[in-house]
Amino acid sequence: MHPAAQTRIRVRVIFGDTDQAHVVYHANYLRWFEAARCEFLRARGLPYTQMMTRGVHFPVTEAYLRYRRPARFEDELEVVAHVSEVRGATLRFDYAIHRLGEQEALCEGYTYHACCDDQGRPQRIPKDVKGLVTG
Amino acid sequence: MHPAAQTRIRVRVIFGDTDQAHVVYHANYLRWFEAARCEFLRARGLPYTQMMTRGVHFPVTEAYLRYRRPARFEDELEVVAHVSEVRGATLRFDYAIHRLGEQEALCEGYTYHACCDDQGRPQRIPKDVKGLVTG
Amino acid sequence: MHPAAQTRIRVRVIFGDTDQAHVVYHANYLRWFEAARCEFLRARGLPYTQMMTRGVHFPVTEAYLRYRRPARFEDELEVVAHVSEVRGATLRFDYAIHRLGEQEALCEGYTYHACCDDQGRPQRIPKDVKGLVTG
Amino acid sequence: MHPAAQTRIRVRVIFGDTDQAHVVYHANYLRWFEAARCEFLRARGLPYTQMMTRGVHFPVTEAYLRYRRPARFEDELEVVAHVSEVRGATLRFDYAIHRLGEQEALCEGYTYHACCDDQGRPQRIPKDVKGLVTG
Repeated sequence: MHPAAQTRIRVRVIFGDTDQAHVVYHANYLRWFEAARCEFLRARGLPYTQMMTRGVHFPVTEAYLRYRRPARFEDELEVVAHVSEVRGATLRFDYAIHRLGEQEALCEGYTYHACCDDQGRPQRIPKDVKGLVTG
Repeated sequence: MHPAAQTRIRVRVIFGDTDQAHVVYHANYLRWFEAARCEFLRARGLPYTQMMTRGVHFPVTEAYLRYRRPARFEDELEVVAHVSEVRGATLRFDYAIHRLGEQEALCEGYTYHACCDDQGRPQRIPKDVKGLVTG
Repeated sequence: MHPAAQTRIRVRVIFGDTDQAHVVYHANYLRWFEAARCEFLRARGLPYTQMMTRGVHFPVTEAYLRYRRPARFEDELEVVAHVSEVRGATLRFDYAIHRLGEQEALCEGYTYHACCDDQGRPQRIPKDVKGLVTG
Repeated sequence: MHPAAQTRIRVRVIFGDTDQAHVVYHANYLRWFEAARCEFLRARGLPYTQMMTRGVHFPVTEAYLRYRRPARFEDELEVVAHVSEVRGATLRFDYAIHRLGEQEALCEGYTYHACCDDQGRPQRIPKDVKGLVTG
């Protein structure tokens, strides 16, 4: 994968992201996965708001997270996202989160998405969308 | 106010509600206010889903919270809600949260709501709704 | 698995759980998994607060979710949790969420947990804990 | 107030911030208030992590929010925070949130904070902290 195919966003951990174990609560990483995924699409000229207007939706059908080391309050994190699989009507995104300037991932994971129309029925991923996310 | 005019719900604090100060994160009380408010309406035969179908919405226009003592992980809380003010097109709910079996409030507050139609334009609160929330 | 080995909790979906696709936001299911997991432990005489006092922690190391059908605002859900695997120093919980009175799961998943001490170092699961969660 | 006394952060609204009314869920603004507040302190050389190490804590004792117009998915918001009041042992922060490049506030509010020690007892705000937040 050449780096251009990835999108990176930065996130600053707030108090509200932590739990009483002094680490980021495990559910919150899914929010950062989403933030990076939306930025990935926006960076390719496909803001999700625009796709919805066209009747193209990508609800999450599966999610997996591997928590390697905890992120902590005030950490500045980088969330890296890329499309790792494209089929007729499904997409897979892969993610890794690390502290800015560090290599080791704190959290990794993926999400699967079904391409659906306004009524929630599966549909083939439009050609232009396919081209842009794999480009 | 006679007790029948109040609605009470119970909430168990989870890890995800806490922050690294070992207490419930302050924003989460607004979620519990909402849970009690919805139950208040449901208990009077006005589930919010049904009101939305009729084109009656009550977006929050103001919120106030007073944090007196912290709620903690695994606490079983009671959230008490009642309508404290009804005008032509606005409603006010008051809330208090305490540990089950205790008197002292951990958190108190209120929310103001504007009655709106499907386009978000202010409208008078329907008579039957008014009757039921003040009954 | 005999039913006694499962724990069930009920959850009412609030507005704050939904997103603009009119369904529960996918990250929120992890919170309900946690609520059911804590109740599972509490029901066996092992409240998580008490385990922490003993220096026994079970941070999440992996999570997986399969979203089958959406949960919606005001749905009353049942979250079923049970321990599906116990090794020397790790636990796995399995979860299923369905609407009250329905059979079909809306969401299923699992979480893996490492047994750790106060310093976050892996340790063997204490005998009594092992006995109670598999009992 | 001269502009230097304010801190501004940017926030991109994600799907997870919205609710089924297609707007940001009202509780989430408190998270953004917190993000701006922490950045305010960090920008003055007082990262909250560092203050906690010194035994200086500022739990929220009151919060008020006025919702003027809704923020929406993918909006890029600016959150402006400044200290509006300093007493012996309490601080008040004021906040305003608007879309980037717009003037009108979508949401405004304030939070009060009590200066506490590690045991949660009120204490006077240390001189250097007072100087830096009012400087």
